[in-house]
Amino acid sequence: MASSRGFAGEISKATQRCLACHRAATPGIVADWEGSLHAGTSPREALAKPRDKSRLSSLQIPQSLSGTVVGCSECHTMNADHHQDTFDHNGFKIHVVISPPDCAVCHLTETDEYSGNIMSRAYGNLNDNPVYHNLVETSIGVQKYENGQLSVEKPDSLTGTDACNYCHGTIVEFEGVEKKQTPFGMMNLAKHSNWPNQGVGRINPDKSMGSCTSCHPRHQFSIEMARKPATCSECHKGPDVPAYPVYLVSKHGNIYSSMDKGWDFKAVPWVVGRDFNAPTCAVSHASQIRTERGEILAERTHQFNDRLPWRIFGLIYAHPHPLDPDTTKIRNKAGLPLPTELTGEPAFSYLITPQEQQKRLAIMKSVCSGCHSQQWIRGHFERFENTIKTTNDSTLTATNIMQDAWSKGLAKGVGQNDSLFNEALEKKWVESWLFYANSIRFSSAMMGADYGVFANGRWYMNKNIAEMADWLKVLK
Amino acid sequence: MASSRGFAGEISKATQRCLACHRAATPGIVADWEGSLHAGTSPREALAKPRDKSRLSSLQIPQSLSGTVVGCSECHTMNADHHQDTFDHNGFKIHVVISPPDCAVCHLTETDEYSGNIMSRAYGNLNDNPVYHNLVETSIGVQKYENGQLSVEKPDSLTGTDACNYCHGTIVEFEGVEKKQTPFGMMNLAKHSNWPNQGVGRINPDKSMGSCTSCHPRHQFSIEMARKPATCSECHKGPDVPAYPVYLVSKHGNIYSSMDKGWDFKAVPWVVGRDFNAPTCAVSHASQIRTERGEILAERTHQFNDRLPWRIFGLIYAHPHPLDPDTTKIRNKAGLPLPTELTGEPAFSYLITPQEQQKRLAIMKSVCSGCHSQQWIRGHFERFENTIKTTNDSTLTATNIMQDAWSKGLAKGVGQNDSLFNEALEKKWVESWLFYANSIRFSSAMMGADYGVFANGRWYMNKNIAEMADWLKVLK
Amino acid sequence: MASSRGFAGEISKATQRCLACHRAATPGIVADWEGSLHAGTSPREALAKPRDKSRLSSLQIPQSLSGTVVGCSECHTMNADHHQDTFDHNGFKIHVVISPPDCAVCHLTETDEYSGNIMSRAYGNLNDNPVYHNLVETSIGVQKYENGQLSVEKPDSLTGTDACNYCHGTIVEFEGVEKKQTPFGMMNLAKHSNWPNQGVGRINPDKSMGSCTSCHPRHQFSIEMARKPATCSECHKGPDVPAYPVYLVSKHGNIYSSMDKGWDFKAVPWVVGRDFNAPTCAVSHASQIRTERGEILAERTHQFNDRLPWRIFGLIYAHPHPLDPDTTKIRNKAGLPLPTELTGEPAFSYLITPQEQQKRLAIMKSVCSGCHSQQWIRGHFERFENTIKTTNDSTLTATNIMQDAWSKGLAKGVGQNDSLFNEALEKKWVESWLFYANSIRFSSAMMGADYGVFANGRWYMNKNIAEMADWLKVLK
Repeated sequence: MASSRGFAGEISKATQRCLACHRAATPGIVADWEGSLHAGTSPREALAKPRDKSRLSSLQIPQSLSGTVVGCSECHTMNADHHQDTFDHNGFKIHVVISPPDCAVCHLTETDEYSGNIMSRAYGNLNDNPVYHNLVETSIGVQKYENGQLSVEKPDSLTGTDACNYCHGTIVEFEGVEKKQTPFGMMNLAKHSNWPNQGVGRINPDKSMGSCTSCHPRHQFSIEMARKPATCSECHKGPDVPAYPVYLVSKHGNIYSSMDKGWDFKAVPWVVGRDFNAPTCAVSHASQIRTERGEILAERTHQFNDRLPWRIFGLIYAHPHPLDPDTTKIRNKAGLPLPTELTGEPAFSYLITPQEQQKRLAIMKSVCSGCHSQQWIRGHFERFENTIKTTNDSTLTATNIMQDAWSKGLAKGVGQNDSLFNEALEKKWVESWLFYANSIRFSSAMMGADYGVFANGRWYMNKNIAEMADWLKVLK
Repeated sequence: MASSRGFAGEISKATQRCLACHRAATPGIVADWEGSLHAGTSPREALAKPRDKSRLSSLQIPQSLSGTVVGCSECHTMNADHHQDTFDHNGFKIHVVISPPDCAVCHLTETDEYSGNIMSRAYGNLNDNPVYHNLVETSIGVQKYENGQLSVEKPDSLTGTDACNYCHGTIVEFEGVEKKQTPFGMMNLAKHSNWPNQGVGRINPDKSMGSCTSCHPRHQFSIEMARKPATCSECHKGPDVPAYPVYLVSKHGNIYSSMDKGWDFKAVPWVVGRDFNAPTCAVSHASQIRTERGEILAERTHQFNDRLPWRIFGLIYAHPHPLDPDTTKIRNKAGLPLPTELTGEPAFSYLITPQEQQKRLAIMKSVCSGCHSQQWIRGHFERFENTIKTTNDSTLTATNIMQDAWSKGLAKGVGQNDSLFNEALEKKWVESWLFYANSIRFSSAMMGADYGVFANGRWYMNKNIAEMADWLKVLK
Repeated sequence: MASSRGFAGEISKATQRCLACHRAATPGIVADWEGSLHAGTSPREALAKPRDKSRLSSLQIPQSLSGTVVGCSECHTMNADHHQDTFDHNGFKIHVVISPPDCAVCHLTETDEYSGNIMSRAYGNLNDNPVYHNLVETSIGVQKYENGQLSVEKPDSLTGTDACNYCHGTIVEFEGVEKKQTPFGMMNLAKHSNWPNQGVGRINPDKSMGSCTSCHPRHQFSIEMARKPATCSECHKGPDVPAYPVYLVSKHGNIYSSMDKGWDFKAVPWVVGRDFNAPTCAVSHASQIRTERGEILAERTHQFNDRLPWRIFGLIYAHPHPLDPDTTKIRNKAGLPLPTELTGEPAFSYLITPQEQQKRLAIMKSVCSGCHSQQWIRGHFERFENTIKTTNDSTLTATNIMQDAWSKGLAKGVGQNDSLFNEALEKKWVESWLFYANSIRFSSAMMGADYGVFANGRWYMNKNIAEMADWLKVLK
């Protein structure tokens, strides 16, 4: 917080003007910023640090920015010409929605990496894929009951932003300026559609994709927060993607929960054993990991699937990661925009090769090697790959029941030109892969104990399949 | 803890007598008390503080109390004449169960506000409303299976105290004194019915309602604890009222979970940005919130619905808050003690007006304005109000299916003089509003991500309704 | 962490040799160890401490060990002759898998107590009991669907280690040595079956049972961690054994969550009020609990059921604890290896007596007496025992429905020489006792609020039974 640190750098005149009102108008975020590294360091000072301690990845910073700390004006007037939503606010040409290209001025590598990350495409990958989009509409639309029949209404846009797109991101567009009376006099204020939003694949008014504040929340932009698992939990906690609850119940998560008070979440570089004693999400998927002797176990990355050979959630079957972050391009043999057939066979030409999978796995294993022997690591991943196979087998069984229902007319699917997801039996089928198969895989990946068995694990998978089979008998 | 602070005030002779035995008899709570503000401050000292730093709200304290710290004897002999359970214990006229009127001697405003809070009526509102009471009995009574038929037994009183009334409160009555041999010799000890209990609507032996220790647990009575979300979680965590899990997964909750180590939970007044960087339950619903410049964004209240325009859980439909904390008085047009019709239409004359709703919303928005722009806040609440509407629509669909079942005799309801809640199909109907509609609303209110979709959100709502419709077909 | 403490003791020459490579090979665990008490104290120093402050329970330590700190070599060459997996590693006869007899050299009492604990038999009790083993196989095996019929495949051994045996323990056997090229040259490395594993009932290569690292994770072996509830949560969190989530939502758990920053988790002895203000799992079930005056409220135990009169989870009905930790010996009157009949009647001759139950309850009550009055404690346990009775009654109802189905041929059970657990209706029956009855009991035992009602509590119990009864009608 502000009180705990001084100001090493000079605040620009423009930012001083912002602060003059905003200390009163929005004191909380001003205090946030005052406690941030942005408020205490100028880019020039940051550039002067050794590369491995610097938080800047850009090697050159515009002269105009480098001498003062990074304040309100520095970011909110950045790239003014590229922002559709630039408007005149009390004499400044500002924009409300900071986009990755703004951050890239100082943090180029991170922004580049992130754009190769499937998360940056989270909006389009969900909404522009007709199969997933139908899953969305049948899941969040309001159903109506008339004459004994159910139908589902198209969800309105406020529901979209309140539901799936909260995490996936919304399309934020500028809707113009409105004049409002404020405690500081009459003022121009911006209007945006689908705002607020900080989803990982947000489409910004400058057409860029992503929102750095998903994980680096305003206005502290703290590396400590981004390294803590609670931050990831915001989107990775529900039954569809239970990474966080599985982590918490794992050995690693328990060491973190019990012992984190002595850890240093701010250290750059981040040293295993010295700064932390068990992996967090960031250790496994993002951070540069060093040993005390200076060996680099894994390079830093903001393309978070760089260490992931498999995609284990969200789709009907687990499969090698897609080649391209834009997954709307994928077509399986049946012509559907899915990375596997309904039988589980991968659409190989759209997915990374076994060689690339091995390369990614090798980086992950290198992170593990900070504490574990080769035998240990090999044993762990052998189990995980077996679990990918057995969960895909169980999903195939659920799909076979569903296909039986579709083929016998006991449910209406593609053949009847109907949604795959709108009937009760279909919703049970969805849960078999969207909730249970993936919980089991997360549990296997992180040693998450009961998530592999009773906590949405194999028990629920088998019960769900048994109920699907029974229900099919009743429908007959 | 005791070791971390000295004793500024004098301990009364009576309390010294208590401590002489109780340091041995119940050392844990003595240590709790020794670490409390009660043990270190006399009311006289507290009264001398500036009003905005004082924890006392009463302006006058009885002379006899004001000079010594607040110890065992001060509270447990307070208002002796009004306590049905006053008894002679080792020469003192004490009572075991401290009630809000005891606390009111020093904390009058808080006690008054709390009595206007719907929570203070939690016992009667649940148990004296025949509709809710039937929901209780069918939910917690033991079912019996005979000749292919199920019936449900009336729950015994121990089950009541162990279940719903744990949070809602029990009726605690004095059952007399028993003589017992103790390590300190033969002694009179009190007996109470339905004890222990610290439910928010506890009916005390002096007929008062509420238990301050629900949120301020003995014997630290710490403001720090009352301000932490875990305290609220005790009653607000399950699928019927998932406020706490939704909060944890929200952006605000993640900032709290990741960064709270630097926050000051004891500061009075409590300053946004200086003492905390994101709202907790107390910030949003209870505490006085100040800016560093001294502006008051919201006044302190112990009537926790003072900032809430809508009641979003526990009932069939979301609706404006009841006018009176005693909700047993409410009658809808159909004559049922419910705040809406079965169609969702509010029983307006028992509910707060749109003007009062706007007034409450304005206070909540003022809290948000500590960090957020007007555009942001408006966008957030627009979504929330839309979600109140869509979840009510989904609940109506579930209710229409249920009405269809009742009208066709496929389930037995009011028309058949039967419980609305005892059959399998009816229990699915209950889940549609008691679990799913409210999870979606909490998620919308707090930006709780997956609770709006997969974690008991819209996915479950739609699946549940689809299964209800299917089941109705089977019952035919 | 390493940086926070110096080295009081001398490191043996052998351990120095290990460290020379392992600081580079596995720096994380070396740093863990450097921060441990093992790295800072020699057994001789530990023996010289007052008994109540010493962490050693063995009164004699081999001369060869006593003068240096407890490092790599001290444990990994211990009892070399008894370890099937001893092999030559860079000139040392080491074994990878440390077993309880290794730890017993210094920690004899704890190891002895643990061997009397039912947890030490967790592997055999699950896998060598044909009824439970069938529950395992039907729960985690992959199901196949052919010609409208489901069948379940026997789970492969990797699935076993990834699921139930992750917590229960695996059979770890030595599979020989392999020569591998490493950064330190060609080296002998061990191979083990079913490795890694740290399950509580692990069968070690020396045939001993248990793994101390389940709760004292490598290589800090921190008493702080073992005393924190997150450690227990690794195995006690799912719907089958929700001890941890129930604790978190209890008053005690909330005090812990909110106030633990000021607690001392390392103090030996552990003093109520001074070191902690509310019970954790360790306080209730394991640690020696003292008052500040030196009174011992409960003796330390590693037989964690020493204070437990009842077994409340995992079996069809709650019942007095088994006499012998090896529960495979139990036979009920029907000849099944179950501690009760299918009607709930206990198999008394295999279970502890009412006298032993009272003795255990008295110890638990003594822990409570650190803070609570006798009236309070009595009221609490009266409720708990009533809840054991009512949950057993509800389980009997579910079982009666199931028996009706079996007797009428609507499901296939023992009479049809079929599994009790493989059909959809049977799986609902299992949930009534494996998920719901025990959640209610945990809630009652710990005042876990909504776990007794809506969070897998009485609501789900009653709904599940109502659905079973309805489903039976449909099957007819």
